[in-house]
Amino acid sequence: MPEPIVFYDIPANVRGIAFSGNTLKTRFSLNYKGLPFKTVWVEYPDIARTCKELGIGPTGTWPDGSPMYTLPAIHDPSTGTSIANSTAIARYLDATYPDTPRVIPEGTEAFHEAFEEALAPTLVPHLLYIHFPAVYGRLNEASKAYFKAARESVLGGKMEQWSPLGSETREQQWVKLEAGLGRIERWLTADGKERRFFMGDKPSFADFVLGARLLGLKRAIGEEHKEWKRVEQWHGGRWARLLLSMEAYAT
Amino acid sequence: MPEPIVFYDIPANVRGIAFSGNTLKTRFSLNYKGLPFKTVWVEYPDIARTCKELGIGPTGTWPDGSPMYTLPAIHDPSTGTSIANSTAIARYLDATYPDTPRVIPEGTEAFHEAFEEALAPTLVPHLLYIHFPAVYGRLNEASKAYFKAARESVLGGKMEQWSPLGSETREQQWVKLEAGLGRIERWLTADGKERRFFMGDKPSFADFVLGARLLGLKRAIGEEHKEWKRVEQWHGGRWARLLLSMEAYAT
Repeated sequence: MPEPIVFYDIPANVRGIAFSGNTLKTRFSLNYKGLPFKTVWVEYPDIARTCKELGIGPTGTWPDGSPMYTLPAIHDPSTGTSIANSTAIARYLDATYPDTPRVIPEGTEAFHEAFEEALAPTLVPHLLYIHFPAVYGRLNEASKAYFKAARESVLGGKMEQWSPLGSETREQQWVKLEAGLGRIERWLTADGKERRFFMGDKPSFADFVLGARLLGLKRAIGEEHKEWKRVEQWHGGRWARLLLSMEAYAT
Repeated sequence: MPEPIVFYDIPANVRGIAFSGNTLKTRFSLNYKGLPFKTVWVEYPDIARTCKELGIGPTGTWPDGSPMYTLPAIHDPSTGTSIANSTAIARYLDATYPDTPRVIPEGTEAFHEAFEEALAPTLVPHLLYIHFPAVYGRLNEASKAYFKAARESVLGGKMEQWSPLGSETREQQWVKLEAGLGRIERWLTADGKERRFFMGDKPSFADFVLGARLLGLKRAIGEEHKEWKRVEQWHGGRWARLLLSMEAYAT
């Protein structure tokens, strides 16, 4: 049994529950592979310092040109490796633990890249305007100001105005999100076959990417909220079923 | 041995050579599978009638709302099936001839859909403005007027003005095409591994889609033309090598 991998996630005001649509991808990956891990919770203002201490470089650049450090990140004491970015982590885990189920099955590496590029315009823009303000309401005080300023620097404007509850703007975002998910449903069903996951019966990283985005949204707006109830009705209940299938990997 | 499949392709002023970036996808598929076929050459103004006679419906809609009939199409005398659209044909051939190599390997069906959606904005817009006028110069008189009017109805403006040789407009299209291919190179190499085809050593429909677009362009502008020579230098010669690998399936 290898030493537990240290998984760096972002805490919220509900203990043990994360709302980030990115860190969940790695949580799914670790659980699916059955690799032992322990979570270290890092508030937003501490992410850069944590990564630097681990020797992990930035994963991107903020609009002002400064380096962007992000979670998820892991530290694997068995190999001494520290690494950020959910896709890079998935590749690392597949390569380092070849006896565990592959998250990115051999031969699908390039398809996974194309998938993420197809997903970005289809799903992400509409989702973020709804997701970020909902996440903001779930964060600890230690993270709130940092999170708001950082997200506003990327998306522009004021977070309060992105998607006011009950506004026509928000309604349009939901409509676009439904249309975006409709395109993804088309990818999944274009050949007339029914499949639960992208590759059929077994999940792969593509499902974790999509599932993480949707589970993050569900948790942030609240599974009992009527807006989420609406999502669960879309496309014959497909997204509700997807998240149900992935519950086992969300712990 | 099954009866030869009838493959409907679009002729040009060089006998036996097609320039369409769409029909080539099916030619690659048929050859890769080793299925016997014979080509029936159909001039553009005859495509709709040919499809209707075969009982094949339109694959899309023209900007004026009228039905759009397109090639490639096949008629398979062994099953009595007639079908258009290169992806639908690939699915049909995989399902009908399970002993031949799969063009869309099991488990990659949804990935192939996402791939095509990722490819469209990355490659196609910049390519068409260059490709169509070059194809026009290669068509038989029977097809020219129809082709020009049809393409202008989709892309707008006058074909002569889309991409004049030596113009700054054209130069920008080549720059964008190079950038688009750079994104595709990133999909193929993001995990640091070298792979000839999308799935590794064996081609799949994704390679046929990309290869068809590039081979169509190469043939239309001429492989000796300095513009094509430039493409062959891009990204370490990757695209020249891809087409070399696919020559065997282009006959």
